Amino acid sequence: MSFEFSDNLRKMKSSEIRSLLKYVTMPGMISFGGGLPNPETFPSAELKEIMDDVIENYASQALQYGQTDGLQLLKNEIRKFLDRDENIKTDTDNIMVTTGSQQSLYALSKIFANPGDYVITEAPTYVGMISSLNANLVNSVSVKMDSNGMIIEELEKQLEYLKSIGKKPKFIYTIPTFQNPAGYTMTLDRRKQLLEIAYENNIPVIEDNPYGDLRYSGTKIPTLKSLDDHDIVTYLGTFSKVMSPGLRTGYTVSQPEVLSRYNILKQALDLASDSLSQYIAYEYLNRGIIYKQIPKTIELYKKKRDIMLESLDEHVKDAVWSKPDGGMFLWLKLNHNIDTSKMLERALKNKVAYITGSAFYQNNPEINTMRLNFTYSSDSDIVEGVRRLAKTIEEEVKN
Amino acid sequence: MSFEFSDNLRKMKSSEIRSLLKYVTMPGMISFGGGLPNPETFPSAELKEIMDDVIENYASQALQYGQTDGLQLLKNEIRKFLDRDENIKTDTDNIMVTTGSQQSLYALSKIFANPGDYVITEAPTYVGMISSLNANLVNSVSVKMDSNGMIIEELEKQLEYLKSIGKKPKFIYTIPTFQNPAGYTMTLDRRKQLLEIAYENNIPVIEDNPYGDLRYSGTKIPTLKSLDDHDIVTYLGTFSKVMSPGLRTGYTVSQPEVLSRYNILKQALDLASDSLSQYIAYEYLNRGIIYKQIPKTIELYKKKRDIMLESLDEHVKDAVWSKPDGGMFLWLKLNHNIDTSKMLERALKNKVAYITGSAFYQNNPEINTMRLNFTYSSDSDIVEGVRRLAKTIEEEVKN
Repeated sequence: MSFEFSDNLRKMKSSEIRSLLKYVTMPGMISFGGGLPNPETFPSAELKEIMDDVIENYASQALQYGQTDGLQLLKNEIRKFLDRDENIKTDTDNIMVTTGSQQSLYALSKIFANPGDYVITEAPTYVGMISSLNANLVNSVSVKMDSNGMIIEELEKQLEYLKSIGKKPKFIYTIPTFQNPAGYTMTLDRRKQLLEIAYENNIPVIEDNPYGDLRYSGTKIPTLKSLDDHDIVTYLGTFSKVMSPGLRTGYTVSQPEVLSRYNILKQALDLASDSLSQYIAYEYLNRGIIYKQIPKTIELYKKKRDIMLESLDEHVKDAVWSKPDGGMFLWLKLNHNIDTSKMLERALKNKVAYITGSAFYQNNPEINTMRLNFTYSSDSDIVEGVRRLAKTIEEEVKN
Repeated sequence: MSFEFSDNLRKMKSSEIRSLLKYVTMPGMISFGGGLPNPETFPSAELKEIMDDVIENYASQALQYGQTDGLQLLKNEIRKFLDRDENIKTDTDNIMVTTGSQQSLYALSKIFANPGDYVITEAPTYVGMISSLNANLVNSVSVKMDSNGMIIEELEKQLEYLKSIGKKPKFIYTIPTFQNPAGYTMTLDRRKQLLEIAYENNIPVIEDNPYGDLRYSGTKIPTLKSLDDHDIVTYLGTFSKVMSPGLRTGYTVSQPEVLSRYNILKQALDLASDSLSQYIAYEYLNRGIIYKQIPKTIELYKKKRDIMLESLDEHVKDAVWSKPDGGMFLWLKLNHNIDTSKMLERALKNKVAYITGSAFYQNNPEINTMRLNFTYSSDSDIVEGVRRLAKTIEEEVKN
């Protein structure tokens, strides 16, 4: 039988990143494409111990359906973690446990915006936000960044533009710290300016902070949420980068009136998040293992970042790139107007993979850009991969 | 700050069932309300062993992001399980691992139907399907059942009705075996007739089969999927009732052209399902533990069903109820036109809880109905709870 399908998915296409996952496993391929944490950072031994104890002590709850808003024990640990780690003062009523942060990107897009509405993102922005907007038929205008994050004048310009077409943005989405894909971090001044603009125009802000704990240089900058005295910021956190992404456990901090809507929607999306993973995350926080794990992860990733930056300096001509103080990615821009999607075939032939920059724009991509991940590959593969990338660029420029 | 929200959730309200979950834990309350498997059926010891081995052998994959369509190892075990258990012959390309079956109800509603479109369900139907339809602004017409499942003449009548208003249903949703909430099972004859109608009109069929393995009496009836020689049925399975609902691991069998759309949508919904839970499910199938666990679960639940049926016979007047051959629920209908939502207050005062029947209709509820779960409570609580329910009905009839 051949079916008729709805029009709901008309703006969606398969993420190039997800599709590229398969190259990661091809023999000889060095992939800077994925967004994968390094398995060396997974606290396997500690998690094994935790799992044993969870089954010993909580089997009948950890294997049962949970509450839609999440495990109360875990929410309380998240509250304490946010206070200690990010100076975010909140209450468990303002916390929702989510099936990864991805679920929140989808849900918040649907809760705040009707089909055809507009939101504001950074340019480039996280590909998972783009797919969530597309799935909900929501449009975006995007704000240019420099190495200090979102350019506030550009934000004002986009707000003016939306006003001129009679639209008010339904929210501003930002990854202010170690942005994915660009690696930039928004300065404190700009954070304050962004909040002022949000307050003046009553525009909700979604702060996505998956990488905040992974700082390798420079000084910590307060999260938007910790600066927010008008309760306008919805904050997204995840354990994907500081415990394990396989456990699909994230959290969202927001007003109860946002979370009550999210709760109703989540009942339709998946009823509740995985109980076992929530109990594991609870013990991971409760036992303080997260505080031992983060420095280890930083040590590993800092070295890899440094190796990639040094290798780029040494080998790559005809391009500029960001110098991230943390996170997992850097952003490379070719000096020539070369389309990195077209160059990808040559790169794969040279056994190196990246994500073409155009994946990170809902519209108007900068085609001569790419995202490079520096956390997954071995140290020696980073050196060799950058060499292959340099060769690929050189060959492409010549042609 | 006070926000404007979208209109997308305008048809949604919090599920009474999810809200009732809190009564389960109130001291002295006997709840027939939840849809919870009995924790005695959770194979804790076996799962503990499996978890240890998973971390030992697959830590770097089980803690990592997985493929959106699911773990290939697990998909292959599901394929074998479906062949052995349900005589469903399929291929891993036709299988998608999902975050519980709930995710598929949401995703399929969105993939097949535009806002304002119509689908066909049973009356009453699963509350998670209603919330998925509401979340996608999809309408339904519903087909009456008797103890032999969907009444085919009623289905034809509804198709005629839709034709008369210029609509074609986007799918037919059915739980043919041990239906939730009614406990009815569709006969083989009706299954064949349903498929014929679907073929003639080219209407996709969604067969939801969470309870098929839990048969306590009568003879197994083939699934629609195993009877389907035109590839029109999308089949939903779950490990919630035969392993653990806390692991949120389900699966969907369908055509690749359906699954490719689902894959794209799932990237926006949650990227991928929990990897650890998928590895656990894989080993649970691979080691054949599921085949030992199902008979144990049947033994426990059969007894509880029998106790509830006997208690109802003994104590409850002024009502009729279904006699399910399996599953977790039975459906009770009062002889008087009493609104069970209004009666609930009295029931809770008498320390017994149920779900009012109206929760299981998108529109036109039969208000004098309720769903009773017989799998969660202890044997003695079932007896006592039914006594309290009988008392509640008696008091209500008098007033």
